[in-house]
Amino acid sequence: MAADAELSASGPLGIIAGSGGLPRRVIESCRAAGREVFVLALEGEADRAALETVPHAWCRIGAAATALDLLRANAVGELVLAGGVRRPSLAALRPDWQAAKILARIGYRALGDDGLLKAVIKELEREGFRVIGADQLLTEIALPEGPLGQVQPDPDAEADIAHGARVARAIGALDIGQAVVVQQGFVLGVEAIEGTDGLLRRCASLRRDGPGGVLVKVEKPGQERRADRPVIGPQTVSLAADSGLRGIAAEAGATLVLDRDEVVRLADAAGLFVVGIHPP
Amino acid sequence: MAADAELSASGPLGIIAGSGGLPRRVIESCRAAGREVFVLALEGEADRAALETVPHAWCRIGAAATALDLLRANAVGELVLAGGVRRPSLAALRPDWQAAKILARIGYRALGDDGLLKAVIKELEREGFRVIGADQLLTEIALPEGPLGQVQPDPDAEADIAHGARVARAIGALDIGQAVVVQQGFVLGVEAIEGTDGLLRRCASLRRDGPGGVLVKVEKPGQERRADRPVIGPQTVSLAADSGLRGIAAEAGATLVLDRDEVVRLADAAGLFVVGIHPP
Repeated sequence: MAADAELSASGPLGIIAGSGGLPRRVIESCRAAGREVFVLALEGEADRAALETVPHAWCRIGAAATALDLLRANAVGELVLAGGVRRPSLAALRPDWQAAKILARIGYRALGDDGLLKAVIKELEREGFRVIGADQLLTEIALPEGPLGQVQPDPDAEADIAHGARVARAIGALDIGQAVVVQQGFVLGVEAIEGTDGLLRRCASLRRDGPGGVLVKVEKPGQERRADRPVIGPQTVSLAADSGLRGIAAEAGATLVLDRDEVVRLADAAGLFVVGIHPP
Repeated sequence: MAADAELSASGPLGIIAGSGGLPRRVIESCRAAGREVFVLALEGEADRAALETVPHAWCRIGAAATALDLLRANAVGELVLAGGVRRPSLAALRPDWQAAKILARIGYRALGDDGLLKAVIKELEREGFRVIGADQLLTEIALPEGPLGQVQPDPDAEADIAHGARVARAIGALDIGQAVVVQQGFVLGVEAIEGTDGLLRRCASLRRDGPGGVLVKVEKPGQERRADRPVIGPQTVSLAADSGLRGIAAEAGATLVLDRDEVVRLADAAGLFVVGIHPP
């Protein structure tokens, strides 16, 4: 802990900010703790409004040399990756010389999402940065085991959760995605590149009559937690309710819950369960 | 073959007709061969226009007793299952006593699509019907190995095909679906209950810049070919082209190609490859 404190004191925390609510949460948490930050905002991903009050610069994902220069110019020693990144095609990436060098080393095509993120973290560490997980900066956000709000899954929902967890784990092992929607034993949808929100939106039109389905979200086997943990938040609950689901089950311990109070309030109001599970 | 001829002569061929173009193809093939048919058209699935000129009756999927009565009243001894069926929820199924009895025996929830279809075929055989595959009634429609039209996949597309085949096989082993779309090494989408056409439509908005993706469709391991073979047709090619894909790879031998000439014409015109592969 003493070493951490020294590193922390050596400069602002660098935040590489992708999409979603996580970067804002990290910024707020640092502000509350009196920690300086420098945000490297990824173009097309980061939320502009979340960055207005803090030192930041925008950067293309493919501009690795620029990114490293910006981080060093702002005396960043410790880094956190926060938020989602829609993985671009190699053509859209337009890698600069630094990114091209990294890509040549790691092999872009051969890697799934998780493999690529692990490699990026390794490169950042090779460049001398210390990469920490967003969860180390936040408190009370890992999903506990059991129901989070008032609603509990019934035995039918439990069966869908068990089936979903098995399938989601297999999907994760293939590095395709983290989430599936299961209704009455059938897999309505599997998350791939569209993300969990996209999966939930399309499941609105795929649902069958009768008791609604369940979103099941789990960590990929061997997932790099510093870069890409399962996340649920108020938006997840709202979309699940809009799509006629009965609830959300996510991996306890591994899943970050953004704005837990609002998640519970929305879920209780909509009659949805939100439950932490231990997948097989 | 003599036994086949006897059975064939004993009454009209029963066609349980789901969605898509396959029922029409089977009807046309029987007409060309001078074989009488009786079509049991599944409500909400079968194409009304395809049935206008042949003896037929409509039936709910859950009305098994009615279905069996209709088949027997029309002297059907030999049956073919043709076309797609969107598996209903148990609530929407509204099983009659016969369907309820069958469901109680096989256990609805425990089965994936393929398991359910196998069980339905077993029940039909138990009731004394001979169930044959649609491919036995049609000619020249199994996808051969190699390219079907003028266009061939380049090495990048070959890499996407290989990755897609591996993933699709795994998705099939989980009884989730038969198809995936892969672009530049990433799984853009996985087919579940929405079907291949639904998968292709949503991949239009998920595609990345650069060379387009590939639809890969394979048989599920141990799939019941008499009920549910992979199918591609002109609609598949049109949707693939609309979604910016570069081509279609499907399992050689196992995949039915509907209207092969039109498939080749559309694919060549759009610059898409259609290729038969042998997945791992």
